[in-house]
Amino acid sequence: MKAYKELNREELQALEKELAKSYEEAKGLGLKLDMSRGKPSAAQLDLGMGIMDALDSDSDMKTEGGVDTRNYGLMDGIPEAKRLIGDMLGIAPESVIVCGNSSLSIMYDTVSRAMTHGFLGETPWCRLDKVKFLCPVPGYDRHFAITQHFGIEMINIPMSESGPDMDLVEKLVAQDESVKGIWCVPKYSNPQGITYSDETVRRFAALKPAAKDFRIFWDNAYAIHHLYEDRQDELLEILGECEKAGNPDMVFEFASTSKISFAGAGIAAVAASPANLEEIRKSMTIQTIGYDKVNQLRHVRYFKDFQGMKDQMRRYAQQIRPKFEAVLQVLESELGGLGIGSWVRPRGGYFISFEAMEGCAKEIVSLCREAGVTLTGAGATYPYKKDPKDSNIRIAPSFPTPEELARATDLFVLCVKLASVRKLLGAPSRRALRDGD
Amino acid sequence: MKAYKELNREELQALEKELAKSYEEAKGLGLKLDMSRGKPSAAQLDLGMGIMDALDSDSDMKTEGGVDTRNYGLMDGIPEAKRLIGDMLGIAPESVIVCGNSSLSIMYDTVSRAMTHGFLGETPWCRLDKVKFLCPVPGYDRHFAITQHFGIEMINIPMSESGPDMDLVEKLVAQDESVKGIWCVPKYSNPQGITYSDETVRRFAALKPAAKDFRIFWDNAYAIHHLYEDRQDELLEILGECEKAGNPDMVFEFASTSKISFAGAGIAAVAASPANLEEIRKSMTIQTIGYDKVNQLRHVRYFKDFQGMKDQMRRYAQQIRPKFEAVLQVLESELGGLGIGSWVRPRGGYFISFEAMEGCAKEIVSLCREAGVTLTGAGATYPYKKDPKDSNIRIAPSFPTPEELARATDLFVLCVKLASVRKLLGAPSRRALRDGD
Repeated sequence: MKAYKELNREELQALEKELAKSYEEAKGLGLKLDMSRGKPSAAQLDLGMGIMDALDSDSDMKTEGGVDTRNYGLMDGIPEAKRLIGDMLGIAPESVIVCGNSSLSIMYDTVSRAMTHGFLGETPWCRLDKVKFLCPVPGYDRHFAITQHFGIEMINIPMSESGPDMDLVEKLVAQDESVKGIWCVPKYSNPQGITYSDETVRRFAALKPAAKDFRIFWDNAYAIHHLYEDRQDELLEILGECEKAGNPDMVFEFASTSKISFAGAGIAAVAASPANLEEIRKSMTIQTIGYDKVNQLRHVRYFKDFQGMKDQMRRYAQQIRPKFEAVLQVLESELGGLGIGSWVRPRGGYFISFEAMEGCAKEIVSLCREAGVTLTGAGATYPYKKDPKDSNIRIAPSFPTPEELARATDLFVLCVKLASVRKLLGAPSRRALRDGD
Repeated sequence: MKAYKELNREELQALEKELAKSYEEAKGLGLKLDMSRGKPSAAQLDLGMGIMDALDSDSDMKTEGGVDTRNYGLMDGIPEAKRLIGDMLGIAPESVIVCGNSSLSIMYDTVSRAMTHGFLGETPWCRLDKVKFLCPVPGYDRHFAITQHFGIEMINIPMSESGPDMDLVEKLVAQDESVKGIWCVPKYSNPQGITYSDETVRRFAALKPAAKDFRIFWDNAYAIHHLYEDRQDELLEILGECEKAGNPDMVFEFASTSKISFAGAGIAAVAASPANLEEIRKSMTIQTIGYDKVNQLRHVRYFKDFQGMKDQMRRYAQQIRPKFEAVLQVLESELGGLGIGSWVRPRGGYFISFEAMEGCAKEIVSLCREAGVTLTGAGATYPYKKDPKDSNIRIAPSFPTPEELARATDLFVLCVKLASVRKLLGAPSRRALRDGD
């Protein structure tokens, strides 16, 4: 394959014509496919239906300590659920508070609490002129939405293969007291599938922030979400590292079973230092009558222990892996050597991150949408939805069937080619003409 | 029975001696009973265990509209759950958003959102010098805890048999722009069991607040929690009344199934005008990936419809009613005519509210605790835990068995008598001596 940049103008024009024709044909197929969100497929969810039998009307509804899960009480989670999540994160159950079904809610509540009440006696953020968060990019749109919602200024931090650019993180955190936090997906990151190296984790733990209330928001969303048996990333445990480095209160870790049990009906947790947990507990007694302990018990009875969760994840991986491989296979065979896009081969998580030629991402997503394939909006992986290079596209292969994926990816690579060749020809894209930008 | 106030000093002294002796004997019984919180009993929860069979691994997990409840999506609740809650509240399903397991969380979120973002374009409350809430008293401690948590000033509003003192409410709301809300438990109120009269509801709906962002926090926690078949209170539906009065956006209504299904694992909802709901939805998409739709489906499949909920409540009432009657029976036979306490005979809800002689509530609760019976802390039913008359005590008969209740109430009336006679004798209470207040 010849790289597009080496083609002369005539060759490019001929190619454009040919691709445009294929694209029109593809539009005629009437596709209606969705690769936009990291949703489990129905078939994957079916694999976990056993959890619906974990409790029935004859079940003993008491915790191992004898507390009735149907009633009020045990505000911070049942002991056996703390142990299950603790084992998954490699930390003691005492470091864990188990909440409701959404870890995003816990993150929102944590930022909200900082806004209205502040952390450990520091000034509530709503009283400060300026609050900033560091945002490794590309990253998770819903993280950025929370900080934007609270008027927190977001600063892009480039990602490398070993995690965020730590030179920049260390510098900004040390010099600017208004930098109060950083969003991290440290394992199988969303969207790149990158796992932070041990050195990166240690540099995080050893940060010397100007702000006493600087916090790392460590969203360990894909802790055990491996794609392979034999190639699995390992993430250094952050709470212990922070403690060793003399920064025990600097991190909140978040996790959930949204992609281990059910996407909307799992259990979620926060892990932190004793001082942070104490403050969360104090706030929780005001905020709620307690989380759903019956669902916590249901999870423990079903999975039994961490091994049970790992076994489940292995079954899921057998379903998800072929989907990732199908997409990667098409990307490689169709785009390899053309110099119009790059991607990381993830070992886990829910996404494939595609880097298009600069200035092409919006056009590609737009072309795909017009032909019936929905992708995550271009720019969504950046704060304020602004990808400065307009090049990142997040592909979520988990939801469609393998057959749908093959068709969707065929269309995707066609759109990548078409948008790229047009870019090289210098022609204004149809989207740009239409939108007037 | 002779009223205590008519006894002379010698008679009082003799009575005190006799009561003190009985109290010492009672302490020797080693009671360990809890009448402190409105918790369902284990036997009551057992009646609802069928809900655990409503879904199993063979169940169709889709909503009536075909959405998979196990996955992401349908942020504001499944349609059939909206209908179930709507029917319970006498409103259209479109007026309802169904959330997680705790209506208190929704109330907290609503106040929190007002603090950080404001309602419908008005100034966020955190930017105002002063925000005040009206608090009908006695009331629900956890309401007061939320407003206290956010530094909102609370103003006591006396309750009458038809609801809060509306002359005072109308006056304060109209004259003071910093009055932003009022906490209401309009049906079978906590703790008095009072249901607001139609006139009270209409006066609420017709309020002319100085503040555009004044809101009624209508916690309809006991909407169908009747104790009797033949004597049931009816509450006028507030959303419709507010709309008729030209104040559609002035009310948030809250409800849950905490005391219909399980106390910690029910479903909760908020109902409001289209404009308010739209604003809540916008915030929800930032705050969460969605609530537990599987549990919503479980509730609908179990109860089927509103009739199913009412049938369940009838079964519960058969268990709870004798408990209320046991307490009331002892109160009447032991304290009737003594002029040392009064109480309301509720037709529903979870509490009996006892008015002791002024200055006696703390002492009574303290005496009970020392003898092994835990009551809700005296003062808890008032903002800042300060009952200006030190007279209100909340009795929660739902959790103990009838036998336990009989023993606990026997002790309670003994402590009421002892504290009252000592008060009349002018003797400093032991608690006062010990606490130095």
